[in-house]
Amino acid sequence: MIKVGIVGGTGYTGVELIRLLSRHGGVSLQAITSRKDAGMPVAEMYPSLRGHVDIAFSTPAEAELDKCDVVFFATPNGIAMQEAEALLAAGVKVIDLAADFRIKDISEWEKWYGMSHTSPALVASAVYGLPEVNRERIKSARLVANPGCYPTAVQLGFLPLIEAGVVDVGSLIADCKSGVSGAGRKAEVHTLLCEAGDNFKAYGVGGHRHLPEIKQGLITAAGKSVRLTFVPHLTPMIRGIHATLYARLTKDVDVQSLFEHRYANEHFVDVMPAGSTPETRSVRGGNACRIAVYRPQGGDTVVVLSVIDNLVKGAAGQAVQNMNLLFGLPEGLGLDIVPLLP
Amino acid sequence: MIKVGIVGGTGYTGVELIRLLSRHGGVSLQAITSRKDAGMPVAEMYPSLRGHVDIAFSTPAEAELDKCDVVFFATPNGIAMQEAEALLAAGVKVIDLAADFRIKDISEWEKWYGMSHTSPALVASAVYGLPEVNRERIKSARLVANPGCYPTAVQLGFLPLIEAGVVDVGSLIADCKSGVSGAGRKAEVHTLLCEAGDNFKAYGVGGHRHLPEIKQGLITAAGKSVRLTFVPHLTPMIRGIHATLYARLTKDVDVQSLFEHRYANEHFVDVMPAGSTPETRSVRGGNACRIAVYRPQGGDTVVVLSVIDNLVKGAAGQAVQNMNLLFGLPEGLGLDIVPLLP
Amino acid sequence: MIKVGIVGGTGYTGVELIRLLSRHGGVSLQAITSRKDAGMPVAEMYPSLRGHVDIAFSTPAEAELDKCDVVFFATPNGIAMQEAEALLAAGVKVIDLAADFRIKDISEWEKWYGMSHTSPALVASAVYGLPEVNRERIKSARLVANPGCYPTAVQLGFLPLIEAGVVDVGSLIADCKSGVSGAGRKAEVHTLLCEAGDNFKAYGVGGHRHLPEIKQGLITAAGKSVRLTFVPHLTPMIRGIHATLYARLTKDVDVQSLFEHRYANEHFVDVMPAGSTPETRSVRGGNACRIAVYRPQGGDTVVVLSVIDNLVKGAAGQAVQNMNLLFGLPEGLGLDIVPLLP
Amino acid sequence: MIKVGIVGGTGYTGVELIRLLSRHGGVSLQAITSRKDAGMPVAEMYPSLRGHVDIAFSTPAEAELDKCDVVFFATPNGIAMQEAEALLAAGVKVIDLAADFRIKDISEWEKWYGMSHTSPALVASAVYGLPEVNRERIKSARLVANPGCYPTAVQLGFLPLIEAGVVDVGSLIADCKSGVSGAGRKAEVHTLLCEAGDNFKAYGVGGHRHLPEIKQGLITAAGKSVRLTFVPHLTPMIRGIHATLYARLTKDVDVQSLFEHRYANEHFVDVMPAGSTPETRSVRGGNACRIAVYRPQGGDTVVVLSVIDNLVKGAAGQAVQNMNLLFGLPEGLGLDIVPLLP
Repeated sequence: MIKVGIVGGTGYTGVELIRLLSRHGGVSLQAITSRKDAGMPVAEMYPSLRGHVDIAFSTPAEAELDKCDVVFFATPNGIAMQEAEALLAAGVKVIDLAADFRIKDISEWEKWYGMSHTSPALVASAVYGLPEVNRERIKSARLVANPGCYPTAVQLGFLPLIEAGVVDVGSLIADCKSGVSGAGRKAEVHTLLCEAGDNFKAYGVGGHRHLPEIKQGLITAAGKSVRLTFVPHLTPMIRGIHATLYARLTKDVDVQSLFEHRYANEHFVDVMPAGSTPETRSVRGGNACRIAVYRPQGGDTVVVLSVIDNLVKGAAGQAVQNMNLLFGLPEGLGLDIVPLLP
Repeated sequence: MIKVGIVGGTGYTGVELIRLLSRHGGVSLQAITSRKDAGMPVAEMYPSLRGHVDIAFSTPAEAELDKCDVVFFATPNGIAMQEAEALLAAGVKVIDLAADFRIKDISEWEKWYGMSHTSPALVASAVYGLPEVNRERIKSARLVANPGCYPTAVQLGFLPLIEAGVVDVGSLIADCKSGVSGAGRKAEVHTLLCEAGDNFKAYGVGGHRHLPEIKQGLITAAGKSVRLTFVPHLTPMIRGIHATLYARLTKDVDVQSLFEHRYANEHFVDVMPAGSTPETRSVRGGNACRIAVYRPQGGDTVVVLSVIDNLVKGAAGQAVQNMNLLFGLPEGLGLDIVPLLP
Repeated sequence: MIKVGIVGGTGYTGVELIRLLSRHGGVSLQAITSRKDAGMPVAEMYPSLRGHVDIAFSTPAEAELDKCDVVFFATPNGIAMQEAEALLAAGVKVIDLAADFRIKDISEWEKWYGMSHTSPALVASAVYGLPEVNRERIKSARLVANPGCYPTAVQLGFLPLIEAGVVDVGSLIADCKSGVSGAGRKAEVHTLLCEAGDNFKAYGVGGHRHLPEIKQGLITAAGKSVRLTFVPHLTPMIRGIHATLYARLTKDVDVQSLFEHRYANEHFVDVMPAGSTPETRSVRGGNACRIAVYRPQGGDTVVVLSVIDNLVKGAAGQAVQNMNLLFGLPEGLGLDIVPLLP
Repeated sequence: MIKVGIVGGTGYTGVELIRLLSRHGGVSLQAITSRKDAGMPVAEMYPSLRGHVDIAFSTPAEAELDKCDVVFFATPNGIAMQEAEALLAAGVKVIDLAADFRIKDISEWEKWYGMSHTSPALVASAVYGLPEVNRERIKSARLVANPGCYPTAVQLGFLPLIEAGVVDVGSLIADCKSGVSGAGRKAEVHTLLCEAGDNFKAYGVGGHRHLPEIKQGLITAAGKSVRLTFVPHLTPMIRGIHATLYARLTKDVDVQSLFEHRYANEHFVDVMPAGSTPETRSVRGGNACRIAVYRPQGGDTVVVLSVIDNLVKGAAGQAVQNMNLLFGLPEGLGLDIVPLLP
């Protein structure tokens, strides 16, 4: 059994990670730390875990994370970069679900995240944990930067087109819609049911932290600079991201076939039949990314629809997928979940 | 492997049954019938099943249900009573998720369901499938009448009080709130998002079909007649039932202890600590019934809060629990699910 | 024009008051105070007011509330009791939408609200602003204690039965369901969309602040002590309260007729035809209380369904109704609103 | 008083029209026809109208629509084209809220709407009822084709850019999100709360009926052909459309100023301050279109956010605005509504 620790298990990403790990079969959950809630049984905060998880939150001191095989950081940005080094030095593998190690350009990261980076060297050695791109590198990694939710949905949607060189990368558009759980479990006014419910709005139009992360991935795929307009929106539901992507084709290509070939061997990317419209609920609670691709009116604009559960493929599920790769387990272990519908 | 057939798998109860059976481990899904949709892959109607269920809907003729070990009816009321007899004669066990075999008093059933019963003899032999009451009888049954959703939540909430003889059974009140999935997947105006969303209402106040079913169970437990006022309400959510039950104590009793003892050995009934308020989402997708019990201001009115997922413990999950009992499997096989929260 | 000031206009009750007053026709909105947001245009916080309200939040010092004819307190509990006296001394009428002056028994108030009352003398002189009970006294009042949301729905539902002396007041039950706006616009975890959405739960079962307020009103109507079990629930919608009330009839009475006569001349209480089930959305944004009354199965339990918009008849609308009474205006002025459906 | 008739008042557009007209002040509602529900009081179907509307649905024969001054068609597509001619001949003005007279190219209309047009001559004489474009022509019209909901939000968002000739009209993108009420009050599976709730999806990606209507308007503004990719999505809320529009600037222009000038005299178009993100709830129940405009990262892609209430500015409110113009009334009469928030 792989000994697992979680730093910061009180948020939505944390409880989702616990849900997935509790049914994984190959892991033993050693500790879940929370300074603020140390001593409280995890199942008291999340009664959905009653009967499934007996552990209580512990202080970092009690947790003995350095005796784990792997530690997940489900913390706010800026924590993992302070604590990862000691764990790595102790031989513990680290998967960060926050943004600390995602962006290679340190100054770019510092600009968007508004703090100084304390471990630039680790950034260089971290592997960006998108298995559909970096599978082999993840397998031998010590430190995995788990991708953000929007970046997962957007990159998986754009990659076949960009890798094949069939679109103009100078005019990409990603119009993305997220459920409210993407904002976490913090007490804030704008995510109250009475503010976010029965309502739809854009946010971060002038600039969102996931923009540089997405661009970094697309630039790598394209081998050259890209221009991307990224507009996130908040939609009144709990889980789910729907990315609607627009690009201009530069070659006349069978896009359906292109996508099917790119993802033929990817267990968690489901290219749906032509004419489908993937629903976010079709992946609710599961680790799949479902994609449909269109050329409306047969024109040269290609439209890609890409949906994920932001807490699963967009966070905790992908983290477990990365853990499986890190330890040579079957990639889908513990992730064979039928989404909850209705 | 137990060979399973499902009659009528196109509704919410049907797809939930498929979700649960697809991860059960001890069954082989032979056929799912739907006259109207025969030939369509199940996963085309429910894309959440893509990659998990390969079978297509079949006609009853193709389905060869008489070669199954067990057949579930996830049909409208009035179907199973016509088809169960032939299956039973062929040695197939039958679990009816509709109401055909729930009520022993045929004329009462006919009054509430508005049709003539075609198999009164089978009603007599059917076992009411509430394992927490009828476990031993279910184990040796051939035909199980799976309880309704409200009846499950209400009976589990009232039973400890009634069995112990500590409340006045002449003035019971069940104020129940259901998510909209309880109304099924039929195209109807009153369950449209724009009708049922951001709205709350009672319905069936003058009389609801689940009233006689609940009363039958409570009468059995009390050993005498009971009077029950049952008011169901529609609440703007998808899954979940919350029953708020009121009774007058006739003896000064430690209700918390009473409930804890009654359900000490019941895996799927979770008596929460005193002062808890069970949330419907804490059982979303799982087979648990969570209960809390109160004596507000220390008075003689006892208040019981009982929550279930109407599609799981209130339908498909309880049906699988019954199937496990019918075939001597561990009662919780395939039902060890962490509810989805948030 | 009546000169109006509002203390604390940043919450949901405040913005609703502004919405109603902006279309009232007989008032001039002089000032809306908020220490924290002084200087910010009200329409910047609530863009729904753009083009309708030009005023900015002001500090209490700038507001010159003592030059107003009437001041509304849309503040947290405990503010109005400190500030009302000076305004009243200056000849300003005061309507408190919080709970400071609702409960005559000071020690009871202090127990439930957890603070010492600073103006017990004012409590004695305040008039409880439920026009359907206290219309004449409100007309000549200087200080009005605007009722709570649950107390409005519950009292209007029980009053005809209690005033007529036809029910056992020793066993009343009020099972109430509220939309989330009842909790206000504070940043709190339990009212986040991801916590309160797609979920249903009870709260405050052991005791809720509105219990003594409701009991006080029912005792006054009954002329003797009453016993009430009050269980509030949170339902995943924005506006609306649905009270489901249970009482035992002690006389055989035509309850439909009883309710129709009691409210025959009440413009804002709508006794619906027998067999109706009032929906909360049927009063969304309007000042009506809609009521239906049942005797299920013709028994001696009477069931009353009572719905209001918690922010209108349960708060700001009733406050405007009280203001109209205070100033001799038509009681419904500015309140002739068609609810928003769907 | 203008005598008004409504054909087909049982849908959401119909009830919204009734809500608006009941508080208009300048009209008298003569008849609301519904073959199916003739005889039923309108307020029985929509209890929100109790106390506000006394009229019952009538048959077309009883309605004497030819004695009205104006008749609104709130019917399915294909009705108004059969009935408008007789009314116009009787001197009645007609406002069609359906699509029968919106598209000048008859064969294009027939292709998208799947039926033969029975009144092509009337199409030629009809005026497209977007007051911000056609105000003067509407004033003297006899037959007004009220715009669709998406076309209203999209055209108002694109027009300043296209009229000013500052964008490439060969690569326009409209990514639109609609509340579920846009689909009407028909009993259909895909708009059930359990299907559309807590879910997000695109639809009609290959082609949607509003595409030719939008293109017709944009072509007129541009004076040349345009290419538009239009992707509508269904979002789990009741009212509201959010259009997110993308275009490539061909000139370096101050887009904020451009929009402010274009709509400086438009009462119902609210150009918000730079950096705003209009929320659909900020127009809930009101006739405003709120717009914000961006150039993310200062690039040449301009992003326009445009929100309306699909049932008001996108249907019934705009129809009343058109009626006001037809009869020389103040354009905003009866439409001075503060949106309902929260």
